[in-house]
Amino acid sequence: MLKIGVDAMGGDFAPEAAVQGAVLALEAIGPDSRIVLFGDEAKIKAVLEAEGCSAERFDIVATTEVIEMGDHPAKTFQAKADSSITVGFGYLAKGAIDGFASAGSTGAMMVGSMYAVKPIEGVIRPTISSIVPTIAGRPALLLDVGLNVDCKPEVLAQYGLIGSIYAEAVLGIGKPRVAVLNIGEEETKGNAQTKATYELLKEDGRINFVGNVEGSYIFTGQVADVIVCDGFVGNTVLKMAEGLYRINKELGGGNAFWDAMNYENVGGTPVLGVNAPVIIGHGISSARAIKSMILSTEQCIKADLTVKLQHAFKN
Amino acid sequence: MLKIGVDAMGGDFAPEAAVQGAVLALEAIGPDSRIVLFGDEAKIKAVLEAEGCSAERFDIVATTEVIEMGDHPAKTFQAKADSSITVGFGYLAKGAIDGFASAGSTGAMMVGSMYAVKPIEGVIRPTISSIVPTIAGRPALLLDVGLNVDCKPEVLAQYGLIGSIYAEAVLGIGKPRVAVLNIGEEETKGNAQTKATYELLKEDGRINFVGNVEGSYIFTGQVADVIVCDGFVGNTVLKMAEGLYRINKELGGGNAFWDAMNYENVGGTPVLGVNAPVIIGHGISSARAIKSMILSTEQCIKADLTVKLQHAFKN
Repeated sequence: MLKIGVDAMGGDFAPEAAVQGAVLALEAIGPDSRIVLFGDEAKIKAVLEAEGCSAERFDIVATTEVIEMGDHPAKTFQAKADSSITVGFGYLAKGAIDGFASAGSTGAMMVGSMYAVKPIEGVIRPTISSIVPTIAGRPALLLDVGLNVDCKPEVLAQYGLIGSIYAEAVLGIGKPRVAVLNIGEEETKGNAQTKATYELLKEDGRINFVGNVEGSYIFTGQVADVIVCDGFVGNTVLKMAEGLYRINKELGGGNAFWDAMNYENVGGTPVLGVNAPVIIGHGISSARAIKSMILSTEQCIKADLTVKLQHAFKN
Repeated sequence: MLKIGVDAMGGDFAPEAAVQGAVLALEAIGPDSRIVLFGDEAKIKAVLEAEGCSAERFDIVATTEVIEMGDHPAKTFQAKADSSITVGFGYLAKGAIDGFASAGSTGAMMVGSMYAVKPIEGVIRPTISSIVPTIAGRPALLLDVGLNVDCKPEVLAQYGLIGSIYAEAVLGIGKPRVAVLNIGEEETKGNAQTKATYELLKEDGRINFVGNVEGSYIFTGQVADVIVCDGFVGNTVLKMAEGLYRINKELGGGNAFWDAMNYENVGGTPVLGVNAPVIIGHGISSARAIKSMILSTEQCIKADLTVKLQHAFKN
């Protein structure tokens, strides 16, 4: 039995959206998967009842506290020891669940990732990544998207390997093409950071390095499956895409490509380089977004992602 | 009489598109403006004849050489002393034309800007900027978009002032809102560079500093009229927008917002912080794009942009 931990109290519309999303996910997860909800038991059961869904279909771990968006992540993670996130990470660290997902406090999720499940040995700095749609019909992975805003080339080079393993294991892309996000295609282009990263990735025989990719090709899928950049650039790319998605929607310019840009379909941001699958959902997650987040978590677990990453850095 | 210098040999489709664009611009420029074409006189006249346009309507400065895209910019600028770009900058430096525009070698245009017309005293590093459309009905200015990929905070802070003067003088935006492109709204967000830039801009009483702007708001026009970032980030934003524009067009999702993203309507990239108006057009410029480039150059000249910038840094 594979256990997917879900924070029922996480996100702006929790517990309703979180629990409704878990109900939606029931139909999509595998027969051997079970969702474990962390949160206020009475409230969870009330939402389940309203949804006409038996509480039997879930494991529920009752918690009494909630880490709010305004709370200081590190302090609150410890202070609110019975919060859904803190308890969830406790379960994850001891192996009582196989992955943990929340649309709640990103800061607290990072604290849990770094201090409860901890970075994989050999990984300099774990990263958060985002799956972006492309018109080539398969997604690409962009990392880092906001965790490490000032990255050394050695850190970026590791993201190439981490992203490659993720793309192969979870997204099912064989020999994923890894590229550095840069302002020109040529090897000599870029800033000091990207030039040095290029040199490191070029020497890494474990990945299929294809060179630089320019911003214009991120969403074409023509050049790269795994796109490496620092968290400042990645976060800007992501937010810009979100902004344009919203503008496009407002102007009525919808189509399949832009629909795929909708965060509700993306299912959250995997934290990569830590010793267990952790997925952070968008704060404004709807039930549909929570469902996607749960399915992403299940995918990471099923793909044995953590073991593969641990193995890659075991040297 | 206001003289707009235009490289008739610049761009992938020169001289045809360059000259055709100049013909198109004739109807739009002011009665006191005159276009000065630099290039192969026979070829220019042949295109004009094919267009049914009298050569009398232009000044033509005959040149015999062309700086090609593959040429080394700095070396060729001197070696091809009779190239359209080198001669154009000679005219610009001695005041025989009031501004110069080319869709040819960006590198050569930068060499001319830096060594022929030279940076304005007090400007640490000149910059190239781009006008981006917003759904608020007025454009925003993004800078730097690729010239300075590793920027000190002092350089970025100057871009705030330079951009503010440009937005007010050329775009006609009163008290333009200046913001730092950042990954969060709060003062404490960002990388070392943006945090330090924020502090410098906050203290600058000459501009209307509004804080940080996230990537999601670049194109809304809600937050900022002038958006400051380093050339790596700005170039990535620009290329990503271009890429999404193309994807959108391919998918048939056109609308007024995306049409405004079309480089053909934007009219090139002003080089700011040098002692004369210089506009660099897109290499693949069509006649329509050249027309926009010429009109942008005229705007910079009419707005007395150079004098305003020189005045602002005179201390």
